[in-house]
Amino acid sequence: MTTRVKPQNPKGTRDFLPQEVAKRNFIFNTIKSVFRKYGFQEIETPAIERLETLTGKYGDEGDKLLFKILNSGDYFKDVPADAMGNAQLATKYLAEKGLRYDLTVPLARYVVQHQDDIVFPFKRFHIGPVWRADRPQKGRYQEFYQCDADIIGSTSLINEVELTMIYAEVFEKLGMDVTIKVNNRKLIDAILNDIGITDRKAEIIATIDKADKIEWSGVASLLYEFNLSVDQVDKLYGLLYNQPYFQYKEQFVSVGEEIDFIMSNFNTNIKVVFNASLMRGLDYYTGTIWEVTANGVQMGSIGGGGRYDNLTEMFGGQNMSGVGISFGIERIYDVMDELNLFPNNITQGVTVLLVPRDAAVEDYAFGLTQQLRQAGISAEIFLGNVKKQKHFTYAETKNIKYMVEVGANEKESGNLRLRNVTERKEEGNGFTIEQLIPYLV
Amino acid sequence: MTTRVKPQNPKGTRDFLPQEVAKRNFIFNTIKSVFRKYGFQEIETPAIERLETLTGKYGDEGDKLLFKILNSGDYFKDVPADAMGNAQLATKYLAEKGLRYDLTVPLARYVVQHQDDIVFPFKRFHIGPVWRADRPQKGRYQEFYQCDADIIGSTSLINEVELTMIYAEVFEKLGMDVTIKVNNRKLIDAILNDIGITDRKAEIIATIDKADKIEWSGVASLLYEFNLSVDQVDKLYGLLYNQPYFQYKEQFVSVGEEIDFIMSNFNTNIKVVFNASLMRGLDYYTGTIWEVTANGVQMGSIGGGGRYDNLTEMFGGQNMSGVGISFGIERIYDVMDELNLFPNNITQGVTVLLVPRDAAVEDYAFGLTQQLRQAGISAEIFLGNVKKQKHFTYAETKNIKYMVEVGANEKESGNLRLRNVTERKEEGNGFTIEQLIPYLV
Repeated sequence: MTTRVKPQNPKGTRDFLPQEVAKRNFIFNTIKSVFRKYGFQEIETPAIERLETLTGKYGDEGDKLLFKILNSGDYFKDVPADAMGNAQLATKYLAEKGLRYDLTVPLARYVVQHQDDIVFPFKRFHIGPVWRADRPQKGRYQEFYQCDADIIGSTSLINEVELTMIYAEVFEKLGMDVTIKVNNRKLIDAILNDIGITDRKAEIIATIDKADKIEWSGVASLLYEFNLSVDQVDKLYGLLYNQPYFQYKEQFVSVGEEIDFIMSNFNTNIKVVFNASLMRGLDYYTGTIWEVTANGVQMGSIGGGGRYDNLTEMFGGQNMSGVGISFGIERIYDVMDELNLFPNNITQGVTVLLVPRDAAVEDYAFGLTQQLRQAGISAEIFLGNVKKQKHFTYAETKNIKYMVEVGANEKESGNLRLRNVTERKEEGNGFTIEQLIPYLV
Repeated sequence: MTTRVKPQNPKGTRDFLPQEVAKRNFIFNTIKSVFRKYGFQEIETPAIERLETLTGKYGDEGDKLLFKILNSGDYFKDVPADAMGNAQLATKYLAEKGLRYDLTVPLARYVVQHQDDIVFPFKRFHIGPVWRADRPQKGRYQEFYQCDADIIGSTSLINEVELTMIYAEVFEKLGMDVTIKVNNRKLIDAILNDIGITDRKAEIIATIDKADKIEWSGVASLLYEFNLSVDQVDKLYGLLYNQPYFQYKEQFVSVGEEIDFIMSNFNTNIKVVFNASLMRGLDYYTGTIWEVTANGVQMGSIGGGGRYDNLTEMFGGQNMSGVGISFGIERIYDVMDELNLFPNNITQGVTVLLVPRDAAVEDYAFGLTQQLRQAGISAEIFLGNVKKQKHFTYAETKNIKYMVEVGANEKESGNLRLRNVTERKEEGNGFTIEQLIPYLV
């Protein structure tokens, strides 16, 4: 223990101060309580996965962003001569394991691997860190949390309604004003077919998805480059933006009914809107899709999800339909912090801080502390520098509600003065410890 | 998403089933509640640290067990020609970051780095995974949780008393029968000095530490190899094994008083014993040390800790004394599981499962489910295969308390039969939903 290095966490990672952890826990606990109320159970998978499990699941760009763990011992021993020095060729010999990139591929592996130990429909949630070797920048980290709830093995649309309700209930509990947008991938497909678009669908969808940023006029001019006619583009606009959801039932019967079922069965005060132009980037969605945004804040999506039909296939599992939602908890934190939505009491420390004025009364103050704790009251004794008034900063930083200073007088008389730290005033004078306990319980 | 690979988590890592996560959370939550009651606040540090931060802190053996993360991009570009192919020389060019090996070195870094944002004495706890490239074997994992509480910046022995109380309170709450052993590194030193041992102390301490496994006679014969006389060995035995703690005050005044202060100030039903022969492996302890063992089970230590004086020095921080304890939560889990100490209700799923007997009553059953949830009752609707009786397995596996099967009759009459799943009997007949809600709340 002699090397002296500058204390610094790696770029793209974060340390969390106690107040930050308390706020993050408030978000996690709120979400967990709603997940549990709807019958979702928590699972955990390791941070480390075999690279074989991760590679090829996130596209070429994703593969580059996987953190790879150097094999132990003489890791060069299996590298063939022609791969030595060539990162592209050598990696598979140098690294067998990597850090998980999301919680979805581990879920697919888990479901196939443990299919005999779990029951279907499998309703699980998972909250935990994932890692991506992205270039760090404001709001983008190499280590960040994901928070997912999924149902595997049920095609019922009731799942979609329940997930919509979970979104609504969580954001209501967090006190956030949000809009939940719903759409269906099959509707997009049906609309494109309807106006005679059969080629380059993925590119066209990606183009339509830009409407959020560049307005429809910009999208339209890009669409003409795909050889779409003015008529087609106008019709597309009408189908994407000018219809209420129930109208699609006549035109696109089956997917229209799906959408209608979802939109007419939830029951919430939160704004849920159908939005035919919602695309969501990810290829693997095959049915309903969601996106949540915070109203009145520039923050992008704070939640998203959808139905996917081919999740477990990649691990040789029988094909099971899945549907799930994510909470973008890093952004939810930022929104709540910016709008001051965290309740004050969540960062609160112990109920009372006992402050011995000098060493001679420390034992006495400690005895009081113990009595309070035995009565179930959270309490601390201050063991720092009282002469330098450090106990005030201590109590305020830790958001401790009450403070009791103890000196020779208090020790002799047993009369304790209770100071309300938050309100910066004396709350009572002349409490005995027996009177103080019921007052603080 | 076309590669097909065998679903398997890496050796030395674990997936956790919902029931296991629930049991682990019970342990975590119990410990956290006691930490908070005593004024400890939770922090978090990243899984990834700079290798510069980790290397050289755990000895040569520890350095070998660090998981190192391959740099991104063309990681070979900085490797000098003479290091290429030589793992010992090349690692520092290939990997800048690694996975944390424990929570203690990150704490030291954190305290120095954030010293202006935290208050001292700094009382923090941290529960999270750490990684070691150990050979996996039964009960030893490459990814496992640590759970630490430490106080940085206070030399008061009251901290030692409080940490002893925290151990006692946690194990009492977990329902575990344990022994908390206490000793002091300075006492070991004073005893060795007293009998004239000044050379090769560390080796001699390591030898004495074997007494747990090979009995004193074995230790004695090893000690003779250090040129200790029969008289010295006998005297050593007497000082280590045949004295109550208060006797040391006369012989080794200052450390004797320290031990006496700790041993006479806690107040618990849990067995706390002074044990002069307790050594604890780690070099960096400089004062009080603890070890906790479970009574009546062969499991080794399930907790340990101590006071250390030089923690923050390695990061250039001013020297602050620290003292802390760890809970060996992986072993605590094993002991509790073996002795069946987990309360039944902690793995409980939702309160009630609604089971529609066919598709025609699904909407009705879902309406009931929603009504229950709106009343604050956790509820699920079963969307799996009812004809194959899968709902019974589902309810039992998820430890759901009640089940309500819904068919055409129930839909028409509104009369619901409540089945108690745990007790496998009918609990009531002919509830309306309005009657059911207050019954289940």
